Amino acid sequence: MSDNSIEVNNARHWVELICDGTSSSADLVDLCTQNIDQTEPTIGAWASFDKYKAAEQATALDYIRKSGEPTGRLHGVPVGIKDIYDTADYPTEYGSKIHAGYQPTADSAVIEKLKEAGAVIMGKTVSTELAFMHPSETRNPHNPDYSPGGSSSGSAAAVAAGHVPLAIGSQTNGSVIRPASFCGVYGFKPSRGIISRRGALATSDTLDQVGLFARDVGDIALLADVLAGYDAADNASYIQTKPHMLAGYMSDAPVEPTIAWLDLPYASKYATDAQQGFDELLEALGPKVERLPVPKTFAALLPCHKLIHEYEIVRCLENEIENHWDNISDTIKPTLTHAKSHTAEQYQEALEIKAAAEQWFHDFFHDYDAILTPSALSEATTLESTGDPICCTIWTLCGLPCISMPLLTGATDLPIGVQLVGAFRQDDRLLRTTRHFINQLTEAT
Amino acid sequence: MSDNSIEVNNARHWVELICDGTSSSADLVDLCTQNIDQTEPTIGAWASFDKYKAAEQATALDYIRKSGEPTGRLHGVPVGIKDIYDTADYPTEYGSKIHAGYQPTADSAVIEKLKEAGAVIMGKTVSTELAFMHPSETRNPHNPDYSPGGSSSGSAAAVAAGHVPLAIGSQTNGSVIRPASFCGVYGFKPSRGIISRRGALATSDTLDQVGLFARDVGDIALLADVLAGYDAADNASYIQTKPHMLAGYMSDAPVEPTIAWLDLPYASKYATDAQQGFDELLEALGPKVERLPVPKTFAALLPCHKLIHEYEIVRCLENEIENHWDNISDTIKPTLTHAKSHTAEQYQEALEIKAAAEQWFHDFFHDYDAILTPSALSEATTLESTGDPICCTIWTLCGLPCISMPLLTGATDLPIGVQLVGAFRQDDRLLRTTRHFINQLTEAT
Repeated sequence: MSDNSIEVNNARHWVELICDGTSSSADLVDLCTQNIDQTEPTIGAWASFDKYKAAEQATALDYIRKSGEPTGRLHGVPVGIKDIYDTADYPTEYGSKIHAGYQPTADSAVIEKLKEAGAVIMGKTVSTELAFMHPSETRNPHNPDYSPGGSSSGSAAAVAAGHVPLAIGSQTNGSVIRPASFCGVYGFKPSRGIISRRGALATSDTLDQVGLFARDVGDIALLADVLAGYDAADNASYIQTKPHMLAGYMSDAPVEPTIAWLDLPYASKYATDAQQGFDELLEALGPKVERLPVPKTFAALLPCHKLIHEYEIVRCLENEIENHWDNISDTIKPTLTHAKSHTAEQYQEALEIKAAAEQWFHDFFHDYDAILTPSALSEATTLESTGDPICCTIWTLCGLPCISMPLLTGATDLPIGVQLVGAFRQDDRLLRTTRHFINQLTEAT
Repeated sequence: MSDNSIEVNNARHWVELICDGTSSSADLVDLCTQNIDQTEPTIGAWASFDKYKAAEQATALDYIRKSGEPTGRLHGVPVGIKDIYDTADYPTEYGSKIHAGYQPTADSAVIEKLKEAGAVIMGKTVSTELAFMHPSETRNPHNPDYSPGGSSSGSAAAVAAGHVPLAIGSQTNGSVIRPASFCGVYGFKPSRGIISRRGALATSDTLDQVGLFARDVGDIALLADVLAGYDAADNASYIQTKPHMLAGYMSDAPVEPTIAWLDLPYASKYATDAQQGFDELLEALGPKVERLPVPKTFAALLPCHKLIHEYEIVRCLENEIENHWDNISDTIKPTLTHAKSHTAEQYQEALEIKAAAEQWFHDFFHDYDAILTPSALSEATTLESTGDPICCTIWTLCGLPCISMPLLTGATDLPIGVQLVGAFRQDDRLLRTTRHFINQLTEAT
């Protein structure tokens, strides 16, 4: 892991330095480029990176600043973009041989928002094949013998390695929270519908959600503010005022937040070191966390997610499956084949189970501010797999906002993430609770 | 003019009252509705208004506030929308019999932005026929024997009459600044490309621009902030960070702003009372305003605008002209007929003249912060015409930001607007200069 990584942290601080002329976007991009040059050969976080394109953007943004023209909330800050988001300036290959060299003509919605906020589009980060489970070539910056997680492998690794202070990913199951956990950075998946998916690879209309990576919760909140917004082109988008992410994070809780630890149906799968880390965490927090059983029906949510995901992915990837089967990895072929067997009735039933779970959470969050839960079953797995997304499945299914914090360390000295899950569309409240939780933990330990 | 009008002023104050629970959107909408009930029969500002739809939105927004859900920057504030912007909840008739009863299925970009900011879409305000020069039925709230100006007649009148604190208009020549002048309210036409025109009636791709009405400069700045943003669907839109309107307005000028009075080629047309008002204004300001001649080439800008407008309007309104000629007023028929005679060469030449003028202004605004100039030739005209847009033509042609302030009064005791024009895409600087100008004038008089 590059020692320089520390220097590119804290996007908000950099925006200040760039906007008051103490530093420049060119300086920051140069620093990031040096970090990339140094560790990219080992890590392989980038699907597409062009130092000249990055420097050109930085120069233009520095010129804007010097001319007294308006600066944006991310002015001059480089952002890594998972290679499933269309970019007019870089190829977009969706991690798949099928789309090798594909050059979109238009930017996706997230790119538009980033550019308008003055961000530098640093390049495209590696996605696993079609944002699914076949491992990419990317390595974990903490130890290249381990997986960075997936499917947002490159975005998590790039932030962890100090290649960029911020990155964009996506999560259909556990594709943001798990790589954040494995790579030891903050990962945030806002509520479904807050950030537009226009121009992103669709694998499941119901489940696909935009996610973010940073080294600081305030930065991730700012990035979410920049990206949030109504877009009629995304049917998950809604027109009501979006949560004020950074303001929420900075605000003080009116009363002590109530945090719940749920005894989840997959708890027996937690690795011993992860379980031990959480036991210690719970002990340190004491009565501040309430331990609760979950309804038996929770077990049904895992196959429910699987069915919806599979039912939709074969429809979203119809072209790839019908016309490019030979260029699909053997890792995902069996799942895609099996997925075709689900019936419309089964799918409808799964959507009903999902709706009931959403109602359960709606009621639950009247009494609790957040659920405290592992981000992943264990430290980073070895390179054969990107790990199990099970610690994210239920929350993603219900579109709930989730954040992973790199607070624990496992037996192999790799990070383990601590996840907080909040109420639907109350991402500001989740971020406020997150700040309180971190402060509390600092006092307790 | 309703005595209640004063109460609905100051949108920002209302947002505070609504968001802290001192008042409610229902209260404000009710007050506005009372004002509409009282004076609409005389003024005729509304093409479509439904008090139940307005109350329903207010109730929903108050519920959002009470639930602790995020509130928007215009939370609960009613806005009037010129009837050339598509609205999914109200008919959109473009002031034309041809489109009577037309119900769009989608909202225009401005409506999306307003809804996401928590505004109440109060209804549709009267536009002149196809946003052109045939007078509408709307009367001037200060005296119903006079015109409210056009083409954004209803929006200006509605704000002047206290029907709504804010309204949206459009300007292709002088359709925001002139009605603001006639009706005695603030009118602001931001730089071309800052606010998306998606879903608005197109009459000239080069010249059509979104404009705003309010009773306070800060409010109009806030409204512009809410509406500003990149939209790939509008080819005038640009992706750079937009000027921070309200922050610009609130900021102090680093040095004394330099203001120029130009001796324009149409100065001999100013009405005596308008000329006298401006003479007094210039005398009060003394050396703070520099009086300058303009290049002789300025005279060519008026026919240049006319040619571009006419060349483009017959193309934009091809359907209306080809298929609905009988339902076009006799007022605009001769212009539309004449307009067809312009050649592509003449049009190209006009675009080149325009480009040269833009370059001139680009250089000019290195030395000056704003141009001080009349908003209209005179007080409101009588009802036969909406008045002459000539005082706006040059600035609209060049896409420059303009603001009209209701600072003078004419011989008939009707308002006359004072216009400030700023540098392209430096709307924040113009608003800062405007605040300084108003303060300075208050001290001087």
